[in-house]
Amino acid sequence: ESLTIGLIPADGIGREVIPAARHALEALGSDIPKPEFIDLLAGFEYFTRTGTALPEETVQILRQDCDCALFGSVSSPSRKVVGYSSPIVALRKELDLYANIRPVFSVAPNPGEQPNVDLVVVRENTECLYVKDENLSEGPHGKEARATRLITERASRRIGQTAFELALNRPRKHLTIIHKSNVLSITDGLFRETVRGVPGLPDSNGKYDHVAVMEQLVDSAVYRLFREPQVFDVMVAPNLYGDILSDAAAALVGSLGLIPSVNQGDDFVMGEPVHGSAPDIAGKGIANPLATIRSAALMLRQLGYDTGANRLDKAVNQVIREGQILTPDLGGTSKTQEVIDEVLKKI
Amino acid sequence: ESLTIGLIPADGIGREVIPAARHALEALGSDIPKPEFIDLLAGFEYFTRTGTALPEETVQILRQDCDCALFGSVSSPSRKVVGYSSPIVALRKELDLYANIRPVFSVAPNPGEQPNVDLVVVRENTECLYVKDENLSEGPHGKEARATRLITERASRRIGQTAFELALNRPRKHLTIIHKSNVLSITDGLFRETVRGVPGLPDSNGKYDHVAVMEQLVDSAVYRLFREPQVFDVMVAPNLYGDILSDAAAALVGSLGLIPSVNQGDDFVMGEPVHGSAPDIAGKGIANPLATIRSAALMLRQLGYDTGANRLDKAVNQVIREGQILTPDLGGTSKTQEVIDEVLKKI
Ligand SMILES: CC(C)[C@H](C(=O)O)[C@@H](O)C(=O)O
Ligand SMILES: CC(C)[C@H](C(=O)O)[C@@H](O)C(=O)O
Repeated sequence: ESLTIGLIPADGIGREVIPAARHALEALGSDIPKPEFIDLLAGFEYFTRTGTALPEETVQILRQDCDCALFGSVSSPSRKVVGYSSPIVALRKELDLYANIRPVFSVAPNPGEQPNVDLVVVRENTECLYVKDENLSEGPHGKEARATRLITERASRRIGQTAFELALNRPRKHLTIIHKSNVLSITDGLFRETVRGVPGLPDSNGKYDHVAVMEQLVDSAVYRLFREPQVFDVMVAPNLYGDILSDAAAALVGSLGLIPSVNQGDDFVMGEPVHGSAPDIAGKGIANPLATIRSAALMLRQLGYDTGANRLDKAVNQVIREGQILTPDLGGTSKTQEVIDEVLKKI
Repeated sequence: ESLTIGLIPADGIGREVIPAARHALEALGSDIPKPEFIDLLAGFEYFTRTGTALPEETVQILRQDCDCALFGSVSSPSRKVVGYSSPIVALRKELDLYANIRPVFSVAPNPGEQPNVDLVVVRENTECLYVKDENLSEGPHGKEARATRLITERASRRIGQTAFELALNRPRKHLTIIHKSNVLSITDGLFRETVRGVPGLPDSNGKYDHVAVMEQLVDSAVYRLFREPQVFDVMVAPNLYGDILSDAAAALVGSLGLIPSVNQGDDFVMGEPVHGSAPDIAGKGIANPLATIRSAALMLRQLGYDTGANRLDKAVNQVIREGQILTPDLGGTSKTQEVIDEVLKKI
């Protein structure tokens, strides 16, 4: 038996952190089925060479041959580039990876850092403004651009179910619904009411009765995240709010270089560090590999390989707690490779 | 000569902080024309009594009789209420107050607080998702809600001009354009390109050549705001991003209770504290009046009454710096009235 893992490093430091996760997975031995890796292409750099950001072959191989995948990070063009469209957004949609799970917690608070952060952002991953239904027209006073923000009952229900399930399995069992229904009464109103309705669905069978449900407008949520992050446990949000909130939460625990995520659907899971391609440090060998290794752990847990996942997490947490071998984003002076070696030692 | 100021306390603590600003304005004596106040109705509470959130009379009196206005804060219904629509969003549009200026800076950093925060969020105030063009339909898998996000060249240009002008008059002369054009290439692409184009407009006459222009994706902007807020000077953003960013920035300097704003158009200005109606503390006499007094100062400055504006600001800053008479949101134990009295003493 083997576990086939598609690797899509894409751009920038994605190419430095994906190999790190690969080594970590290989080090797990019999805790997981023998991993087989398939290298796959995508990204802005690939687009500039070929005119395609996400080749069909990549999607096809992920669908047909892979049990799961790890994605690195994509660069964004600094000016409009005709024909370019983000491959990560496309992949999430193509594979119907409707939930983006982003846990943020501090293992070893630095002085001055927010204590007690332990939350998960559950981000809807397929709609909202990410449907990319945009158009440009000529109006009486010049150009007018319009984008559609789509919120459906179906997508809100399934992300709501994912969030309730997650909340149920955490000690505090709190769920905060993020919205802006004081302005978007119809779209965010539908999101909020649908998520609120999850415990009453026939197949919920009363199991979510012990989850405490709160709400917070997205603007106040960002404010409270900075002021009293300990009040949050699971936060469920439409796509764009989730994007912003997870970056906000990341800022509380030291570095985006620590924050993992999985994009998950009903039958596929793709790990992905929350950080970007970081063109300023790409190629210097100092990218933080920990977010990606943690993303691999989340991916394994989602597939049921808890022992392997726990070993990766424990190793990462130990490295952070010891604080000796860290990359510059965490105030250290170590190289990516040294951090990888340290993690491998602890695995 | 007199200065006619419309007062719209609206809901919750709006009713406690608007009188504070009134007292402060009255204390300015001959620094401003004799202020005349007109009390005006609006709000969610008013809606529940009358079925209207923003009576036409309020808009008419503002248009015909007032030189400027001060708005308190509105409550948001906790569930969908048929026919209700936010009066502040409506007012901004009705009076074409297209720029929402929100300065955030720390006067007296608390221990553990971010140092060197001195920025202004320039928020487009009339479009983006705030056009409230939403609809609900029945799709194959249940309800589908759609909202239109509108970005026009005209609105982007005038908010860009406001932002460049502001940046030009600040010591650092930096402007950061906030967008998410890696996903919204058409709408945010138009915003970004139009703002970038402002220095090249015929009536700019090269005067913005010394403004340094940067860009930041909205998610990274929130991250950087928490990690290194000192990098930001003026930030210009489409409506919703500006809403979120200003709350994020507020969290850096102690309390939303300190953050003022003005909604300004070509011929009207309305001051408004950034905080909400705070139902949890409304009626207790402990609301922080400083954001509203500062909003009155911004309003005066916009009207050209710099001496009066400076006196209000100085008094507020002195109260904060002394740290003796502060409301609970700033860690103090004083009442709203005591803070007002202290400000009046310093004026
Ligand atoms: C690269 C970009 C399209 C992406 C997003 O907005 O989803 C990124 O910010 C993320 O959070 O994964
Ligand atoms: C009350 C609400 C409609 C408003 C907004 O979103 O603009 C508020 O959050 C603000 O920032 O002034």
